[in-house]
Amino acid sequence: MSYIKPKLLKGFRDLLPEEAIIQKEFFKVISEVFESFGFSPIDTPALEYYDILTGKGGGENEKLMYRFNDNGGRDVGMRYDLTVPLARFIGLNQNELNFPFRRYHIAPVWRAENTQKGRYREFYQCDCDIVGSDSYLADSEILMLMDSVLNRMDIKDYEIRINDRNILEDLFKLLEIKEDKIISFATLMDKKDKMSESVFKEKSLEFLKDNEKHKQFLDFLSCDSLDSLDEFFKDTKVYENTSIYIRRLKDTFSICKENGKGNNISYCPFIIRGLDYYTGIVFETVLKDSLSYGAVFSGGRYDKLAGMFSKNADYSCVGASIGISRLISALKERGFFEKDKVCVADILIMNMDKRYHGKYINIANVLRDNCLKVEVYLNDDKLKKQFKFASKNGYSFSIIAGEDELANDIVKVKSLKAFEENEMKIDDLVGFFKNTL
Amino acid sequence: MSYIKPKLLKGFRDLLPEEAIIQKEFFKVISEVFESFGFSPIDTPALEYYDILTGKGGGENEKLMYRFNDNGGRDVGMRYDLTVPLARFIGLNQNELNFPFRRYHIAPVWRAENTQKGRYREFYQCDCDIVGSDSYLADSEILMLMDSVLNRMDIKDYEIRINDRNILEDLFKLLEIKEDKIISFATLMDKKDKMSESVFKEKSLEFLKDNEKHKQFLDFLSCDSLDSLDEFFKDTKVYENTSIYIRRLKDTFSICKENGKGNNISYCPFIIRGLDYYTGIVFETVLKDSLSYGAVFSGGRYDKLAGMFSKNADYSCVGASIGISRLISALKERGFFEKDKVCVADILIMNMDKRYHGKYINIANVLRDNCLKVEVYLNDDKLKKQFKFASKNGYSFSIIAGEDELANDIVKVKSLKAFEENEMKIDDLVGFFKNTL
Repeated sequence: MSYIKPKLLKGFRDLLPEEAIIQKEFFKVISEVFESFGFSPIDTPALEYYDILTGKGGGENEKLMYRFNDNGGRDVGMRYDLTVPLARFIGLNQNELNFPFRRYHIAPVWRAENTQKGRYREFYQCDCDIVGSDSYLADSEILMLMDSVLNRMDIKDYEIRINDRNILEDLFKLLEIKEDKIISFATLMDKKDKMSESVFKEKSLEFLKDNEKHKQFLDFLSCDSLDSLDEFFKDTKVYENTSIYIRRLKDTFSICKENGKGNNISYCPFIIRGLDYYTGIVFETVLKDSLSYGAVFSGGRYDKLAGMFSKNADYSCVGASIGISRLISALKERGFFEKDKVCVADILIMNMDKRYHGKYINIANVLRDNCLKVEVYLNDDKLKKQFKFASKNGYSFSIIAGEDELANDIVKVKSLKAFEENEMKIDDLVGFFKNTL
Repeated sequence: MSYIKPKLLKGFRDLLPEEAIIQKEFFKVISEVFESFGFSPIDTPALEYYDILTGKGGGENEKLMYRFNDNGGRDVGMRYDLTVPLARFIGLNQNELNFPFRRYHIAPVWRAENTQKGRYREFYQCDCDIVGSDSYLADSEILMLMDSVLNRMDIKDYEIRINDRNILEDLFKLLEIKEDKIISFATLMDKKDKMSESVFKEKSLEFLKDNEKHKQFLDFLSCDSLDSLDEFFKDTKVYENTSIYIRRLKDTFSICKENGKGNNISYCPFIIRGLDYYTGIVFETVLKDSLSYGAVFSGGRYDKLAGMFSKNADYSCVGASIGISRLISALKERGFFEKDKVCVADILIMNMDKRYHGKYINIANVLRDNCLKVEVYLNDDKLKKQFKFASKNGYSFSIIAGEDELANDIVKVKSLKAFEENEMKIDDLVGFFKNTL
């Protein structure tokens, strides 16, 4: 017989229980927080018309997309994010939705990009967006939600850095950067964190070709608060416009602070978030002790995206997305997950005697009906093998019952962590495990 | 400006909150029951090498697959079920797993098939499998788990029909059906439920071309219990073999009955489950009041599937899969979901006065920290518009607070179902909603 080699595509991976259990727990926490903020789940297809996915995406996304002709000859692509599908969703379903519309979406996306540490070609995104409100309150809600999610995850060293695209545009005006040079200048700013200060200074001077402008730019970058930003723009020709956006950021910020959620949020002059669709506030979250993983939770305001599908769908939107795979990778590397569980069950019932199969299953089912996670050892193997299995899987307890025990309606309960063994009435098991686990 | 028409690919669909909330609730119940039976979550990629997906699938699946060359020129396909990826997963990761291995997987699959009522080209499967046990106990565990899931979903009219492929093979021997005719005969049996009794009799006689064999076949089909099945085979030449499998089904069954889970499980002589990979027990679940939706929860034993990846991976497997999209469609048609919720939030805080934005958010956040689902109305719209929004979204309560109320640390709580309004201290809100919702 010839065998097929079991292999994965490059950039793809399996999640074994150990990691899938963590991911599931994170999804649970995330969706609980999203829902507490009134965001409802939606779902959209993995495949969309290629034209729709590239509508506003531009060159970079096209290269990254899994694209093909389906069996009906349609030009299709696998979604590379959840934001463009949201815009299409809004365009298509707007008559059935009530605005402002808060939705979240947790689903995989696909990008055929070069793989690197913690990055895969298939990864989950957890997005929350508010569609149909241009209020600064919506911006605050998203920021506070990000803060709540990270808090619930017990992460301490996060920093949510915010900026506003309108302020950046005013900066570009001030520096007299030509329209066709903005992308490369913004790209340089975006990479500031990835190079040394001296290299960055050199490169930015090379770009601006003017010592005075360069000094102005460095002054801008040294703004570490909204007040200093205000100071920076105060006497410039763009101030009339910029001040509106600085005020808005201040209002947004103060709502967060009033609610005790401002400690990890700070203004950061070089946050850009690419150049595709953002039109207002932008933000990204880094873990200060794992900077190499990049932004793990980011987003911003985009007021024109759904508008590409119809004039009526021109809704103001703001949202954020957690790169959960990257976040888990970063946390794993830091030993965040003390002890990995390789199996969900907490209790293993040993298979001691074929005559009592029905009884073992019965004990299991009573526990299961009480929300306990119980496995019965199925094969008629030697006890030694069963204990080896139990120890590998890391159950907390095993239940052992042979003729003598069952004749008296008792079992032995063995703690596999504390290496203790106790006899217990079968009727007492639910109470015991409910209290102990 | 030119617009892109927002449209979905044929056979694909969006889930609006109304339906996504239901689906999410079902996933929650399903994974809770799966985990109580000791099944751990795993995840595998949506894309696999085409060769792997078709390894044992055969012609039917090839036609249905979304297949293309990726950017690296690899011949890839989108998974069309979760069982073949499981076999590949086992083949690849067997050294890191402990057997018997219980895993579940809830994920979308893709099939380019003709669409019909309740069937889409993208749909979720919820699979649970036990890998590495050939014990009848494993079969019982899967059957009891199916029963538990359907019970937890409050479905009453389900029937889990079981059979064994070995028994069917003995029947085919008895009827002297040639090897190359088995597929078409089995296909006929598989469709028995979809034609009238007389048409079926006619077609099966046409096939068997022998009155005596036909009578024998009809006798077989009239077996409505394992005892009558035993009676049917007793004096035949295949009985020595068949009796082993009848005994096994009886043992499997009695474990379920002993545990009070046998009432909706019955032997059914014409259950086949296709001809691909099953090698032992097979089962499917129909909703007696929605037969047209077909099987909603089915599976069986397949002892050779992972073996195609290596000699060492030749594990005995048994598992079941819920067609959740189909199940939800069937239940929706029956008005199972009394009142659809179009939004997750239960409470809407009205936006009465810009001066109190911070206060509204503050009230919301306190409730949110207590696991309540709360939305704040973001835009500075007239109250009438806000109430219209509240009524469309179906919140249970709205909170109204202007200058007079907030000066006294109270709010108005309006029940949007009972049309009542009460004044309440802000500090009492958590307690009130915790008790009421």
